[in-house]
Amino acid sequence: MKYCTECGGSLEFRIPAGDGLPRHVCTACGKVHYVNPLVVVGCVPEHGERILLCKRAIEPRYGYWTIPAGFMEIGESLAEGAMRETLEEARARVDIHDLFAVVDVVHAKQVHLMYRATLLDGEHAAGDESLETQLFLPEEIPWDDIAFLSVRFALEKFLEDRAAGLRRLHTTVIDRNRPA
Amino acid sequence: MKYCTECGGSLEFRIPAGDGLPRHVCTACGKVHYVNPLVVVGCVPEHGERILLCKRAIEPRYGYWTIPAGFMEIGESLAEGAMRETLEEARARVDIHDLFAVVDVVHAKQVHLMYRATLLDGEHAAGDESLETQLFLPEEIPWDDIAFLSVRFALEKFLEDRAAGLRRLHTTVIDRNRPA
Repeated sequence: MKYCTECGGSLEFRIPAGDGLPRHVCTACGKVHYVNPLVVVGCVPEHGERILLCKRAIEPRYGYWTIPAGFMEIGESLAEGAMRETLEEARARVDIHDLFAVVDVVHAKQVHLMYRATLLDGEHAAGDESLETQLFLPEEIPWDDIAFLSVRFALEKFLEDRAAGLRRLHTTVIDRNRPA
Repeated sequence: MKYCTECGGSLEFRIPAGDGLPRHVCTACGKVHYVNPLVVVGCVPEHGERILLCKRAIEPRYGYWTIPAGFMEIGESLAEGAMRETLEEARARVDIHDLFAVVDVVHAKQVHLMYRATLLDGEHAAGDESLETQLFLPEEIPWDDIAFLSVRFALEKFLEDRAAGLRRLHTTVIDRNRPA
């Protein structure tokens, strides 16, 4: 980040007056350019016993499996974002149910929020960001080829809850930069 | 948003190839400048029967009461953010417990996540962004002077759960731009 979005002036990285953290501050107009964590929203789409996964056609983790998820957009709710991502990545229409996993992915500057969901009609197909989509029975899930730790966490907790007949909220913190 | 943060070139607002929404795109280097909802994190700090609120010393809603809450920062978890905001705004140290309220504030381009918390030692004082802080019994809460609908929602649900001996997750969508 080098130039001010409002006046084109040069930015410097310093602690603004009254602030506690360094920010990108414009040397010309003084505007402070904040950078904050982003929300990734997704769902575990269920169809009977099976769960819908997408094989990623984009980096990071090209070729690995994930649940439908992506960056939340302005103008939508979390549940609407999860629905939109599922339509985009898996060409699947879902009912979004309860929020069940909240994962801080600190090193990635993201918060991941995942919902339980059910496919409306069982139809699915690869969207632009997917190589393929597939419905998996629990014992068929390709655990060694899951794209992200947050997705593994969500899938594990989803299946645990389903087996136990529970609907709980699960939270965890993932940070590659902290000692385990 | 007028200038590119990376090259200083002029931005235009258009739908990039392969995208579904208009973005600020640099006419010189092509960089896409995404804007996404921000996470606001806070807590309801309990001290015995009482709840700690802050009277805002900043706009919006100067002079109205709120729970300690603010924008999540890079490098922290949600719970750490809630703790930091409470220290900054109410000079109070808290134990953060469970996430209990998730509120989409669509028109504000924010997602609010609120935790149950307890004061460590009962001490509190106005931080830079507060005019004063005060511990309220449930019947003393200044409902007509609560700063935000999301805070009202969190306080109501917190008290409902406490009265019922429950620890539930509550969610709602607030959007001034949608018909009620």
